[in-house]
Amino acid sequence: MDTLFSNVTAVTMDEAMHVHFGAFVGVTDGKISYLSKQPPQERPKQIINGEGMVLMPGLINCHTHLPMSLLRGYADGLELETWLNDYIFPREAKLDDRAVKAATLLSIAECLRFGTTSVSDMYDHCNAIAEAVAESGIKANLARGIVMFDENFDFERSGKCREMVDLHQRWHGYDNGRIRVEASIHAEYTSNSRLWDALSEYAINEGLAMQLHLSETQKEHEACKERYGLTPAQLLDCHNVFGVRTTAAHCVWLEPEDRALLARRKATAVHCPVSNLKLASGRADVLAMIKAGMNVALGTDGASSNNTLDMFEEIKAASLLAKSLTGDATALPPQAVLMMATVCGARAQGREAECGMIKPGMDADLILLDFTSPHLMPCHDVMSHLCYAARGSDVLMTMVRGRILYAAGKYETIDLDAVVRELAEYAMPTVFK
Amino acid sequence: MDTLFSNVTAVTMDEAMHVHFGAFVGVTDGKISYLSKQPPQERPKQIINGEGMVLMPGLINCHTHLPMSLLRGYADGLELETWLNDYIFPREAKLDDRAVKAATLLSIAECLRFGTTSVSDMYDHCNAIAEAVAESGIKANLARGIVMFDENFDFERSGKCREMVDLHQRWHGYDNGRIRVEASIHAEYTSNSRLWDALSEYAINEGLAMQLHLSETQKEHEACKERYGLTPAQLLDCHNVFGVRTTAAHCVWLEPEDRALLARRKATAVHCPVSNLKLASGRADVLAMIKAGMNVALGTDGASSNNTLDMFEEIKAASLLAKSLTGDATALPPQAVLMMATVCGARAQGREAECGMIKPGMDADLILLDFTSPHLMPCHDVMSHLCYAARGSDVLMTMVRGRILYAAGKYETIDLDAVVRELAEYAMPTVFK
Repeated sequence: MDTLFSNVTAVTMDEAMHVHFGAFVGVTDGKISYLSKQPPQERPKQIINGEGMVLMPGLINCHTHLPMSLLRGYADGLELETWLNDYIFPREAKLDDRAVKAATLLSIAECLRFGTTSVSDMYDHCNAIAEAVAESGIKANLARGIVMFDENFDFERSGKCREMVDLHQRWHGYDNGRIRVEASIHAEYTSNSRLWDALSEYAINEGLAMQLHLSETQKEHEACKERYGLTPAQLLDCHNVFGVRTTAAHCVWLEPEDRALLARRKATAVHCPVSNLKLASGRADVLAMIKAGMNVALGTDGASSNNTLDMFEEIKAASLLAKSLTGDATALPPQAVLMMATVCGARAQGREAECGMIKPGMDADLILLDFTSPHLMPCHDVMSHLCYAARGSDVLMTMVRGRILYAAGKYETIDLDAVVRELAEYAMPTVFK
Repeated sequence: MDTLFSNVTAVTMDEAMHVHFGAFVGVTDGKISYLSKQPPQERPKQIINGEGMVLMPGLINCHTHLPMSLLRGYADGLELETWLNDYIFPREAKLDDRAVKAATLLSIAECLRFGTTSVSDMYDHCNAIAEAVAESGIKANLARGIVMFDENFDFERSGKCREMVDLHQRWHGYDNGRIRVEASIHAEYTSNSRLWDALSEYAINEGLAMQLHLSETQKEHEACKERYGLTPAQLLDCHNVFGVRTTAAHCVWLEPEDRALLARRKATAVHCPVSNLKLASGRADVLAMIKAGMNVALGTDGASSNNTLDMFEEIKAASLLAKSLTGDATALPPQAVLMMATVCGARAQGREAECGMIKPGMDADLILLDFTSPHLMPCHDVMSHLCYAARGSDVLMTMVRGRILYAAGKYETIDLDAVVRELAEYAMPTVFK
């Protein structure tokens, strides 16, 4: 046994949703090997005393754009189209691999510090993102988000598609599946049917999953219906886009038929409540999606529309927003929303056999929270505290596959000072010159 | 000069809303005595190097029930009336002064740790609350919230009113005004006109301000209209309740006439977005209140309907909720909402000449935030970061009247270990036996 968490409050997130007080959780060769109220016979190499602490599965952020931390708080407070067209897009056009890698490492540092052990990312310069993920030890499902308006688009001659294929060949399955590569149509309104056909064909034939933005704003949703007579979900379904495991970010304006369709296709909706509120996109009806049988996970979206990558904030926001939308103070209770951030996230990433619970045999993707701060006392209900009172800053340690990547302000794999220097000396001047 | 903050980013919150980079802020005899881009001639007794940090006025929490931290997360996730009648009220009935004092000290520790320097509180056992406030060094406007259904109510013979008078005589103006005592009608729906007349008369004659809950839920608002043909605001106005400086918590269901009325009466609405979302009370129209000319401040409400006392969370929630309600991503920008948490809060408390800004002559109620964590980098816009990315846990130091009450995990005036013991050994057994 490599590591033993002793006397810890273990929130397993397994089917029984048990909270084990005074538990012992052992880690061997990167996997959870022991879970009991009794200490193990075997002597561990390392003991972490978990008194006053909560151990739970690492959080899974199912929709983000990691390099956008570089644009965190840049020109926000503007109307969406002005912000995108006049500020964000011109800066993104100046990004290069080196700047993207630095920004990605900064974001991963934030993810680890706030208890996220796996992310689904959609962006550009994905090779640089993959390098940062590989070095850092975090898990990631990476996609090259493709925007395509060219009516003469041809898969073979498209530079963007070539990037996707290269990414797939180079990184898919890296480090025993720590990195997975996925296909990505950025969104219905930013692409055309040639792309949808080509990418769904590639994804189906190659066994890749799919990431996309879906019905994020009312405008995009209604414009699609006006143009095609179909909702974005219905339209994309005609092009087999949901023929593979799909994570559809936002899903704010889905209609009942869309929810039924996406449930049949076993697609995951990634609810991003903070981003949806900040950009005034609307309030996604999470309960309706769950009732329709969809898998619903959580995401922060990029840092520039949030402006953090703290999944504990999304957990609380999702629970509060569901209560607000339904007028029912009992809606989306702590258990349900913590599931979204763990088990449902793992399912979205195709990692449900691998992580999302504390269960012997699963990867040791674990986080430890300090429950002795004034805002977490007294503790009548651990689940309630994790949902309504805890925040990313309460995370003391983040472990992926048994390796402690963050603990007490220190990073094992990221030289944060070097990242900050690289941002100041290279990335910021490159993008904001 | 007692303390000098050097090379700090100072967010003054004054009329010009300046952000001064590389500023020097001096504190002498509890007051801000110096603000400049140049170091002072005078040699300070203590220098705090503010590089990489932001100095701003302490946050003002204008509506809370401090002792309710004892019930944080207790039986939440229930329907409101069940929760109150079957769980909260029976536990509150068991509270005594000693338990209240311990719980209040716990809450003040949380306030200080998250950057709050002044609170407006409404509860019972107020003498114990005042003792905790007095010992801790925080500022507070304290009110004995009075619930009164007795039709034979008589001010002179009412134990609750006697408590208020005692509180007033004993604590109003304590420590040169650090504690102020206010009158309080708990709410329209929890009291009768005899109380309204008697309390408004007492408040007007004694020069006390007033705290109350107003139009928090649709149910209470509509029931009042049905019973009296007037909204709660209109009804209470007939009884001169707004004849003194008033803070009206929640104001979720105000109508246009209510807003105009309350603006004329110079009343403050205390917006409590997280509590309103958690209890599914509705979404207060902050922009409409501001446009009507009302002063709007922020509050956390009690810990049991939040479940923290982190004002940075309210700041972000208020900004996001306004965007969501109006469908306008530019609504309630960082400057406006940071004003609500500082300047407007000071005005609500009658402390506008005393605190809420960094301005020479004002009390040195200051907080220092670490801006070097990954989630606050890079920093394109300090105001944006304070609103959307910072959280209470980024506060490194909290100072009230020049005295550092919290710094780097340590409390100057609160023995947190002793408080935790007192909670475990006395308060919890007393309330939950």
